[in-house]
Amino acid sequence: FVDDRNLLYALVADGPLKTFCYRRLSYLKNKFGLHRLLNEETESEAMKNPDISCKRDFYNVRKVDTHIHAAACMGQKHLLGFIQEKARKQPDRVVLLKDGVKMTLKEVFDHLQLDPHYLNVDSLDVHADRQTFHRFDRFNNLYSPMGASELREIFLKTSNDIGGEYFADIIRQVETSLVEQRYHFLELRLSIYGKNYNEWESLAHWFTSHKLQSTHIRWMIQVPRLYDLYKSKGVVNTFQQILENVFLPVFEATIRPNKHKDLSLFLRHITGFDSVDDESKQEAGFMKKSSPTPDEWQRPTNPSYTYYLFYMYSNIARLNYLRHIRDMNTFTLRPHSGEAGHHDHLLTAFMLAENISHGLVLKKVPVLQYLFYLSQIGICMSPLSNNHLFLEYNKSPFPDYFARGLNVCLSTDDPLQFHFTMEPLMEEYAVAAQVWKLSVCDMCELARNSVIISSFSHSEKQHWLGASYREEGEEGNDPCKTNVPSVRVAFRHETLVKELRILCHAFSRDVSHT
Amino acid sequence: FVDDRNLLYALVADGPLKTFCYRRLSYLKNKFGLHRLLNEETESEAMKNPDISCKRDFYNVRKVDTHIHAAACMGQKHLLGFIQEKARKQPDRVVLLKDGVKMTLKEVFDHLQLDPHYLNVDSLDVHADRQTFHRFDRFNNLYSPMGASELREIFLKTSNDIGGEYFADIIRQVETSLVEQRYHFLELRLSIYGKNYNEWESLAHWFTSHKLQSTHIRWMIQVPRLYDLYKSKGVVNTFQQILENVFLPVFEATIRPNKHKDLSLFLRHITGFDSVDDESKQEAGFMKKSSPTPDEWQRPTNPSYTYYLFYMYSNIARLNYLRHIRDMNTFTLRPHSGEAGHHDHLLTAFMLAENISHGLVLKKVPVLQYLFYLSQIGICMSPLSNNHLFLEYNKSPFPDYFARGLNVCLSTDDPLQFHFTMEPLMEEYAVAAQVWKLSVCDMCELARNSVIISSFSHSEKQHWLGASYREEGEEGNDPCKTNVPSVRVAFRHETLVKELRILCHAFSRDVSHT
Repeated sequence: FVDDRNLLYALVADGPLKTFCYRRLSYLKNKFGLHRLLNEETESEAMKNPDISCKRDFYNVRKVDTHIHAAACMGQKHLLGFIQEKARKQPDRVVLLKDGVKMTLKEVFDHLQLDPHYLNVDSLDVHADRQTFHRFDRFNNLYSPMGASELREIFLKTSNDIGGEYFADIIRQVETSLVEQRYHFLELRLSIYGKNYNEWESLAHWFTSHKLQSTHIRWMIQVPRLYDLYKSKGVVNTFQQILENVFLPVFEATIRPNKHKDLSLFLRHITGFDSVDDESKQEAGFMKKSSPTPDEWQRPTNPSYTYYLFYMYSNIARLNYLRHIRDMNTFTLRPHSGEAGHHDHLLTAFMLAENISHGLVLKKVPVLQYLFYLSQIGICMSPLSNNHLFLEYNKSPFPDYFARGLNVCLSTDDPLQFHFTMEPLMEEYAVAAQVWKLSVCDMCELARNSVIISSFSHSEKQHWLGASYREEGEEGNDPCKTNVPSVRVAFRHETLVKELRILCHAFSRDVSHT
Repeated sequence: FVDDRNLLYALVADGPLKTFCYRRLSYLKNKFGLHRLLNEETESEAMKNPDISCKRDFYNVRKVDTHIHAAACMGQKHLLGFIQEKARKQPDRVVLLKDGVKMTLKEVFDHLQLDPHYLNVDSLDVHADRQTFHRFDRFNNLYSPMGASELREIFLKTSNDIGGEYFADIIRQVETSLVEQRYHFLELRLSIYGKNYNEWESLAHWFTSHKLQSTHIRWMIQVPRLYDLYKSKGVVNTFQQILENVFLPVFEATIRPNKHKDLSLFLRHITGFDSVDDESKQEAGFMKKSSPTPDEWQRPTNPSYTYYLFYMYSNIARLNYLRHIRDMNTFTLRPHSGEAGHHDHLLTAFMLAENISHGLVLKKVPVLQYLFYLSQIGICMSPLSNNHLFLEYNKSPFPDYFARGLNVCLSTDDPLQFHFTMEPLMEEYAVAAQVWKLSVCDMCELARNSVIISSFSHSEKQHWLGASYREEGEEGNDPCKTNVPSVRVAFRHETLVKELRILCHAFSRDVSHT
């Protein structure tokens, strides 16, 4: 792995290769510009034609929000109303054990000197604003309503003194509105921190006891990269302990499912792992062959992004092997990558990930961006989130990636912090369509990408995209389901094939010369 | 009027004055930048404080959509669903008389070779796209669902073979959702073309028979500037006829309300007049003292924008005098102005209008922009509409106008053509907040402006903004109702007063020198 990574690292920095890739990317963008001008009318006519598009339009094609955190999946107005309702209806319910003392909901509010009746969205204070730009620390604080960690604990945690009941309730409300809207689906992230061995059982119990299975939601596990924090607090001694806390329970449940009923059931609804944290943080150093193994990693500093991902990947790979031969569902690795920080993260993700969230840094690394294009690795982008944290909306590389044919889709990340309307995913599409003048065809292509990138099952994807959606090019597109005209899909496919052919041709010429 | 206009025209073109105004506008923008940096926290704290802002937040302060056309006030998905429902439930209803032949709804669809069951939003074809930019003609065609004027006639007209029933139905559905949302209000435009004398009676009958009075809607009359079209078709002979068709019935109903019961009732719900059409069209020439009077205007060419507005103003002024002494409600003139075309339109509006819609052209005319600032004439802006027709979102002068303190608000213009979500006004605010990084304070200030600019009644405004909303500065602001912190209102007021003081000072020095 380290050898391959080093080779790739050298390639990415190679001058002539950079020029080559930059020029190919420019070529791809211009080619799409031409396609648009020449075929816009054809595309638009095909979508209007009931024989081709049946009753589909942008509103009733399936869209998956491929990157959204469970603790922020509701709007700010929704969360406020929920908190106020609970405070009104269950003031005397014991919701918190603080320093051994039982506290009712009313006592919690009294302690915080807050009158829930007089709260507003502003005092809730969970929305990102101009103060959060380049301040991931401040952004993290926004997960605490009114800045009170007690309220985060009570309302947005799976494991607390009410068994995560409120959090399950509000997620179920989000789910109800998804079912009503019919065509929106979510891939919600829940956290496993790796601080102790019981996290999985506790999370699984929360999930099964609150019956959170849903046709509209798939679940993913996000692992924050917080070894250094736990180490400094004495929670863990080696990095190995984190890995064991994250993966051993899953191995256990895979081998002895009957001994771990909740967890086994829960795992059936888990589709993959995400790796999360502030990517802009300074990193100690790259992973080397001489780096200590996880059980030797006792130093106070955090391992690099690459180190984390490599060991997550290795564990998931072994796990998938075990699960596959037992006819159990397997897991993907779909980390945050390239939201900020060193492009090394993207290079690692290119080698290990199924697809990624963000990918902003590809903007500055033409070789990697070209590789992501050629390999069609999915990129779940959230320009409204980036706009509040790392990159202004107008500087987003999204429209360029899309034009070049990278496999991108739109996702919300955190509706609680970033969105205003009751339809956050629609808001994400609407802002993009308005600012970047996307056509309906563009929007439907993005929706189709989102389904393909998602971890919904093969049969669900067949139902939503057409039976042969895995075929390449036109064959794989059913306009009656996707509302994407064949001319668009054909263009994307032909362009990619030509691009690959150029490379093969150059390679074979190179080989014959030597 | 012509003398004053000529003086103003010369001032606007005066070199030193242009420099002066340009510098003052730059100064105002920078001053607001400083205010933001220094008072952002104070503003934000005030909004969170329940003693100051009570339970108000951006979601529950009143917002008026000050510029929206009735025929496009519903979303595209809404209109599609409505048409399909009627086609399913009333296929055999006679809805159209075509060349003397009665046609049922089913026959209309058969004639158009459309199966209503298989329609989608794309085939509905009412949404603006890349093809409409700088093409007002194409935009106008979008008012016809599936490009069929028959469907426009049946579904979006007040006067047709079903007495405008469907159009009234769908407006009532929009109204129901407004009442549910509680805090959104509309100022809907209905057309009087001036083609014949009976338009008013017919419109009033439609309004009263369908009981369209609503607490959430105020109505305005838009007069398209189409003399040249009617003249070429032989519908009218002189411009005077148009004026008479537009104003005489209102004079009549004002003088003899008992003889015109429907119209008198309708007029009570009318708040003003709008002047509409493609402003980018070539105009014959400016209004001069030597211009023919309306009864002499028999030429085939259209009178200028100024000519239209001057005669609308004159009639409205006389009308208001008559109505005022009879204790009847009076009317405002709130034309489209400066969406495109010559800045002469804005100069005219500056002299005659209560407030305007669009005002984009002020961007290029510093003297006029400064005058709009000093006089605080309201500007109802619709950046999403402009984005599809005349000016890309990122080039909109909106954030500059707002920073400088011009009295701007946000409006939707045509949700049918421009918006994607079920909450078009919220979408308008959301896109602006995201792209231009508006704070919640900014958004609440805009909402407050929209109420002030609107023609809702004095008592309604008192209820929504506070009893003394007409007072200047802090006195006029009730944060418990508007959620705008006093520090913001005070800043705007102090800045304006200082600006006026500079001018007075310079003027008195000038006078003492001579």
